[in-house]
Amino acid sequence: MPDTHPSVMFDRTRKDRIGIEEAVLAQPKSVGQIAAIIADAMAEDRRLLLTRLQPDQHQALPAAQRAALDYCAMSYTAMLGARPSPRDMPRIAVVSAGTSDSGPATEAQRVLAYSGISATMIADVGVAGLWRLLSHQDSLQRMQVVIVCAGMDAALPSVVAGLVPGMVIAVPTSVGYGVAAGGRAALDAALASCAPGVLVTNIDNGYGAACAALRFANAAGGFT
Amino acid sequence: MPDTHPSVMFDRTRKDRIGIEEAVLAQPKSVGQIAAIIADAMAEDRRLLLTRLQPDQHQALPAAQRAALDYCAMSYTAMLGARPSPRDMPRIAVVSAGTSDSGPATEAQRVLAYSGISATMIADVGVAGLWRLLSHQDSLQRMQVVIVCAGMDAALPSVVAGLVPGMVIAVPTSVGYGVAAGGRAALDAALASCAPGVLVTNIDNGYGAACAALRFANAAGGFT
Amino acid sequence: MPDTHPSVMFDRTRKDRIGIEEAVLAQPKSVGQIAAIIADAMAEDRRLLLTRLQPDQHQALPAAQRAALDYCAMSYTAMLGARPSPRDMPRIAVVSAGTSDSGPATEAQRVLAYSGISATMIADVGVAGLWRLLSHQDSLQRMQVVIVCAGMDAALPSVVAGLVPGMVIAVPTSVGYGVAAGGRAALDAALASCAPGVLVTNIDNGYGAACAALRFANAAGGFT
Amino acid sequence: MPDTHPSVMFDRTRKDRIGIEEAVLAQPKSVGQIAAIIADAMAEDRRLLLTRLQPDQHQALPAAQRAALDYCAMSYTAMLGARPSPRDMPRIAVVSAGTSDSGPATEAQRVLAYSGISATMIADVGVAGLWRLLSHQDSLQRMQVVIVCAGMDAALPSVVAGLVPGMVIAVPTSVGYGVAAGGRAALDAALASCAPGVLVTNIDNGYGAACAALRFANAAGGFT
Amino acid sequence: MPDTHPSVMFDRTRKDRIGIEEAVLAQPKSVGQIAAIIADAMAEDRRLLLTRLQPDQHQALPAAQRAALDYCAMSYTAMLGARPSPRDMPRIAVVSAGTSDSGPATEAQRVLAYSGISATMIADVGVAGLWRLLSHQDSLQRMQVVIVCAGMDAALPSVVAGLVPGMVIAVPTSVGYGVAAGGRAALDAALASCAPGVLVTNIDNGYGAACAALRFANAAGGFT
Amino acid sequence: MPDTHPSVMFDRTRKDRIGIEEAVLAQPKSVGQIAAIIADAMAEDRRLLLTRLQPDQHQALPAAQRAALDYCAMSYTAMLGARPSPRDMPRIAVVSAGTSDSGPATEAQRVLAYSGISATMIADVGVAGLWRLLSHQDSLQRMQVVIVCAGMDAALPSVVAGLVPGMVIAVPTSVGYGVAAGGRAALDAALASCAPGVLVTNIDNGYGAACAALRFANAAGGFT
Amino acid sequence: MPDTHPSVMFDRTRKDRIGIEEAVLAQPKSVGQIAAIIADAMAEDRRLLLTRLQPDQHQALPAAQRAALDYCAMSYTAMLGARPSPRDMPRIAVVSAGTSDSGPATEAQRVLAYSGISATMIADVGVAGLWRLLSHQDSLQRMQVVIVCAGMDAALPSVVAGLVPGMVIAVPTSVGYGVAAGGRAALDAALASCAPGVLVTNIDNGYGAACAALRFANAAGGFT
Amino acid sequence: MPDTHPSVMFDRTRKDRIGIEEAVLAQPKSVGQIAAIIADAMAEDRRLLLTRLQPDQHQALPAAQRAALDYCAMSYTAMLGARPSPRDMPRIAVVSAGTSDSGPATEAQRVLAYSGISATMIADVGVAGLWRLLSHQDSLQRMQVVIVCAGMDAALPSVVAGLVPGMVIAVPTSVGYGVAAGGRAALDAALASCAPGVLVTNIDNGYGAACAALRFANAAGGFT
Repeated sequence: MPDTHPSVMFDRTRKDRIGIEEAVLAQPKSVGQIAAIIADAMAEDRRLLLTRLQPDQHQALPAAQRAALDYCAMSYTAMLGARPSPRDMPRIAVVSAGTSDSGPATEAQRVLAYSGISATMIADVGVAGLWRLLSHQDSLQRMQVVIVCAGMDAALPSVVAGLVPGMVIAVPTSVGYGVAAGGRAALDAALASCAPGVLVTNIDNGYGAACAALRFANAAGGFT
Repeated sequence: MPDTHPSVMFDRTRKDRIGIEEAVLAQPKSVGQIAAIIADAMAEDRRLLLTRLQPDQHQALPAAQRAALDYCAMSYTAMLGARPSPRDMPRIAVVSAGTSDSGPATEAQRVLAYSGISATMIADVGVAGLWRLLSHQDSLQRMQVVIVCAGMDAALPSVVAGLVPGMVIAVPTSVGYGVAAGGRAALDAALASCAPGVLVTNIDNGYGAACAALRFANAAGGFT
Repeated sequence: MPDTHPSVMFDRTRKDRIGIEEAVLAQPKSVGQIAAIIADAMAEDRRLLLTRLQPDQHQALPAAQRAALDYCAMSYTAMLGARPSPRDMPRIAVVSAGTSDSGPATEAQRVLAYSGISATMIADVGVAGLWRLLSHQDSLQRMQVVIVCAGMDAALPSVVAGLVPGMVIAVPTSVGYGVAAGGRAALDAALASCAPGVLVTNIDNGYGAACAALRFANAAGGFT
Repeated sequence: MPDTHPSVMFDRTRKDRIGIEEAVLAQPKSVGQIAAIIADAMAEDRRLLLTRLQPDQHQALPAAQRAALDYCAMSYTAMLGARPSPRDMPRIAVVSAGTSDSGPATEAQRVLAYSGISATMIADVGVAGLWRLLSHQDSLQRMQVVIVCAGMDAALPSVVAGLVPGMVIAVPTSVGYGVAAGGRAALDAALASCAPGVLVTNIDNGYGAACAALRFANAAGGFT
Repeated sequence: MPDTHPSVMFDRTRKDRIGIEEAVLAQPKSVGQIAAIIADAMAEDRRLLLTRLQPDQHQALPAAQRAALDYCAMSYTAMLGARPSPRDMPRIAVVSAGTSDSGPATEAQRVLAYSGISATMIADVGVAGLWRLLSHQDSLQRMQVVIVCAGMDAALPSVVAGLVPGMVIAVPTSVGYGVAAGGRAALDAALASCAPGVLVTNIDNGYGAACAALRFANAAGGFT
Repeated sequence: MPDTHPSVMFDRTRKDRIGIEEAVLAQPKSVGQIAAIIADAMAEDRRLLLTRLQPDQHQALPAAQRAALDYCAMSYTAMLGARPSPRDMPRIAVVSAGTSDSGPATEAQRVLAYSGISATMIADVGVAGLWRLLSHQDSLQRMQVVIVCAGMDAALPSVVAGLVPGMVIAVPTSVGYGVAAGGRAALDAALASCAPGVLVTNIDNGYGAACAALRFANAAGGFT
Repeated sequence: MPDTHPSVMFDRTRKDRIGIEEAVLAQPKSVGQIAAIIADAMAEDRRLLLTRLQPDQHQALPAAQRAALDYCAMSYTAMLGARPSPRDMPRIAVVSAGTSDSGPATEAQRVLAYSGISATMIADVGVAGLWRLLSHQDSLQRMQVVIVCAGMDAALPSVVAGLVPGMVIAVPTSVGYGVAAGGRAALDAALASCAPGVLVTNIDNGYGAACAALRFANAAGGFT
Repeated sequence: MPDTHPSVMFDRTRKDRIGIEEAVLAQPKSVGQIAAIIADAMAEDRRLLLTRLQPDQHQALPAAQRAALDYCAMSYTAMLGARPSPRDMPRIAVVSAGTSDSGPATEAQRVLAYSGISATMIADVGVAGLWRLLSHQDSLQRMQVVIVCAGMDAALPSVVAGLVPGMVIAVPTSVGYGVAAGGRAALDAALASCAPGVLVTNIDNGYGAACAALRFANAAGGFT
């Protein structure tokens, strides 16, 4: 059957307007569309970031495109082109409770890397073994932004926010069963947090948390 | 208008059958019905426990009944008759996150007291200030049952369960606003807890948590 | 009936630990408890911030306390003590869609004012008359943090986030009828926003949005 | 296994009664049933419109039927027979926010085309890049009916309705993740819209929006 | 306590832009604000429409304003100023299932009347007694727009849409108990309707249905 | 303020058509309307059944009407006129779990009495004390229809249906707290029942259960 | 992998106790378990009814069992053994709105047939073409029990119940998209029905509706 | 594609701290990760418990690991290493309503067996045939902990809790259709139970129920 998805109109002025490039949400697009977008970028020698690119979509791309892409199957992200030289600032940590939360955590890490920011990864620090988190306390208190990815461990963002003075961004994750399935329990626990100033993204939205951190970088830099 | 509520059929064999006396859930009953139940108990010189007795229901009772009752407006509980001499065992703590959670916490405490068990109260230990809970760590680790009442601080049962070897019973509470209103967020967070072996009651059900602790006392005593 | 609410244990090290003073959530507390907290602060000549202090709670306080408090009936906030001299930074705007959203917007403004930050208020800019928002575009693009309060106008955070490079914090509000009642529709629309990097608080949580802005100030200042 | 679905009783007087032909909702039907319906229509030389015909259902039809059908895999629609000559009126636009929304948008377009109405397609105009929508403002203001398909961009129907005097029909779409999954967030945002006079269909119901536009055509023409 | 609600910024160009005047949603506003808005309109000799003006809000207005207003307690609407001379077109009916639905039905009728359109009211035609609706069948089939208000009688919009060729706008209503309470059951039944081309408003939104009918009038008239 | 509710169109042929008289749902009607309906019935010497007539509505009726009505404050029902002589058949029991469920149980009983059927009332048989229900087992097994009213005791309809061969109609009730509040938990438990052939009404709909029992009487009698 | 499902304990006295044989819910069982149950029945020359037997489960059974079973892929039911000679009474109709609803409708029909009752099938009578249902009005009015299966056509049970004096049992069905998906909208519409005495089963529970009809037969026969 | 899941940080002090070893939740982990965890345990000659290990994950492990593991496909659990010699105490029963509930019931049994506790299994005792449960009454009344697994038979925990004095832990299960699908109906029925002292786990969480029973063993033993 022919590939009839319409062509895509990019928001090319987005970077100038709000300081964040448009990324390509790959999952709902056809392989033909994705390949066309990549081909355009390669032809113009433009960088490109794709999110939620499923392994089977990735496999179906032309070999030359696959060779050019830096693809990560855990976070479903792909990058084309050189990365900027790493910046020192802002200091950002991505904290995750367990293995189930590593997909969105890695997505956040890689979206930041695409903009030259090296986030510190702190994994497996669920509150059921509180000593694990407390062993990172000093490091976390120096961070300007802490992204906390947690699903079954809905308590983690509150505990972190009680320990650190920087921005705390909770990314509820969807892995889990029973009332945890889909992530609504983790989302609501983060929104209801008793710790002051926790901010929340959509479920599994590591990309959104990273974009918010980029907004922090924009704003803390005074838009210079 | 006449008081037409039907008379109530007590489950008088409950204490012998399952080791827990039937209590009177007062809120949905008419004042006339409640007064009749109390009068019966006074006539038979029987002890009585009432839960969810609203202040206006209490005020409307005959003065002699009000004088005989030990009423607590914070937990909406009332007791009639002498309390048993206090037992040493089991060791039970009732932990609460904030002032909003003191109603169900006190309900649990008083239902236990009605059976001669003095629970230790540990209040105001929300995880946003983790040092408060950790200062009680040694005491909590010696408890056989820890009842944890928390609404906006949905993280508390998980953190407690990661610290103690005894039974952990979460009582989600309903006070809060937005997604926390009604207690569903706290309930789901407790059910989804990453800490192993957390058990949960209905929202605001301090009475149920105390009854479960009585079941613990029954069972740990070997039904002797 | 006696006032049996337990006394409150403050998290007095919070300011040093995370850079935000503990505030008093007044609504679930008894008038006696609130008055005791205020009396303590007055005795120690300490500043104090109360949120969700209902008009009838405020009316029931001792006259001397009412005279000392700066109370705002629209946002249910009360402040005791001198405010710090205003700071220039960070640049923060509080945007609201309609009159229904002014409660949380004013709460955010006053919590910021309590910390010496004068936020710019931009009201009545619902997207049904887009020209109103666009007339503030230049001002908004210079802001480091934009707090957007909207209930029935769930579109507003997305539109704002498409226009500005700074941080965007959506505060869904609960006023509305039908599917809008309670604020869940506004909350979900903000979480699902197609604009990158929108962060969200609990429904009606202007206090939380202001605390997040204080975290921004902490972090952008480098914790110096 | 034999094909035991019962035969279908068409509502053959529907066109005369309400001005809209009955269409065949293919998805819940067996291939045998669908083939029988198509065979009947071909035998009687009747036109036919099928919706939600899945690619695997289409593939399983007899080759002769597949040759006779005009099938569109993006919108899952199939048409049999000649289309009426195009009419000038009414002027209808189908607006969509992103690629994820093109399925229902195309379904609406093709259902209208089956009745001889050429709708104007305006795609990729999500509010995160508002300039894209505003560049179509003049065209949109001349439209009698604007169908707006949007899922993650739940703000779009409100923004459009604030710009145009014609009818605005929102079609919430189901593509998205987290709170957006399934389309309920988009649906509720459209229903709660602050812009006056937005009407809404079921999630993904491009067919229903097109039928409503046909009702507009019936009514605006005075049923002549 | 002083009336601290901020002043309101009207969308004064709305009528020119989209053909519908801005109305005042009174319920979430303070009496002082409402009185100020009315005073402004009286001073400028401008017409004004208020919706959801509660009886106690109305009672608290100055006597002179109450005398000038045409207030309807069933629909909570108030109008100031002369009504336009009635127009013949479009032909609109407002159908309601039962007494519970008369509030939104009357709201729709009066909002239309404010624009000079006399809608035909057809009440008490719930499908449990189908003969009542069928007795109006001829009249309904001549209508260009039929607004159907129904709560417990969620079947009514589908039945009407199966009978008439004009536009059908369902207004789900909130009165009812059990699963019907709040109107979500009626809303979902209308959205899921098997009858083609039913459009839906928010629960109880008679105002929105009337505005949609005004958009019909705009569009059917060709914007002349 | 004048009483502007429109007059009510009765479905006077309902009794002939489906064997059940139309009843008046009083709660959403104004006192003026209710009084007019009663006056009409008294003038025509017609019997009348009102449901959900609130105590304050009842109090506000003219004294002569109050004297003529048989009003029951527990079930909110009122009857006017003579009751038919009691019939022997069908044999119907109304079973309720606790005091909280007596409102709907009594509503069912009185609606049946209005048609001359004396239902057997069996109260206070919650499954927490199973011996209470089992003591009625013989009686229940002879019943043709068993109406089971239960809220917090969601198990009761299943247990009854496992014991009896007659029709079992579950009426979920709304009294309760936490997840039980509003009756959805009881409703879903009844619908999901593992016992075969349990049928369910809307929450608190004792009237509906009684009407279903009247349909049973119609049908079992062969419509003679 | 070995088939480790535990053996099943039948409720063999059910038929004597409540007049309905236990049926086997096949879907959650392993093929090994199902085959063992069938083998037992064949060895004892016992009749057997299986529900929700999926096609792939059926295909995996031993050939001899497949030959002995009367399997229906549309309703997922299988019967073993001779059917009783058909009875005249009770008169039962199974009405369905559209093709999507034929699965549960056929399940009800076959479960009744297993007990010797021939139900009248009336299909494709959705209310969007009301004439179709009205053409069966005389027949329906003679039925003792009418089972109404409807999903997207949630109006159908109300319309039927307004026309007939017999018992009306609504079976909401799950086929549909958007708000109709899963059947909750159809369920709630049936529960909220304005027509008196509609009873409801779980979604897709044609088996339960048939069992309720068997209870009717039990009860109407006077348990003789 | 390379296996990029991060390594796992075990909570190795958990057994000492809370008396329960950390188990490995296998489902969200990659096969490579699971194999590495098993290899580590085998190298250190450590025992290991894995939960929710799917059959396809199990099949993909190295043959030597499969040989060493005791895997159960019904409960998705796997154990490595010797089991402790069985203890007499505590006395625990695992009760299940039907075949659909055997997965979580077996999970609970095996997690207990891993700690040397032999639980008594009581299956197929749904309340629709109450005699089955009552035949086990004496045995159940001697149990210290009764774990009750039930989905469609949401009544079972309440009935059990009315019969026994020991601890009652309800495990709602997810198998079922319509309102029962996913387990929320069973969960809410257990939480709302009228029987005093029922405690609840997340849906399908047999592991959690077993851990709670281990906490009982810890506490009843006095932590000696």
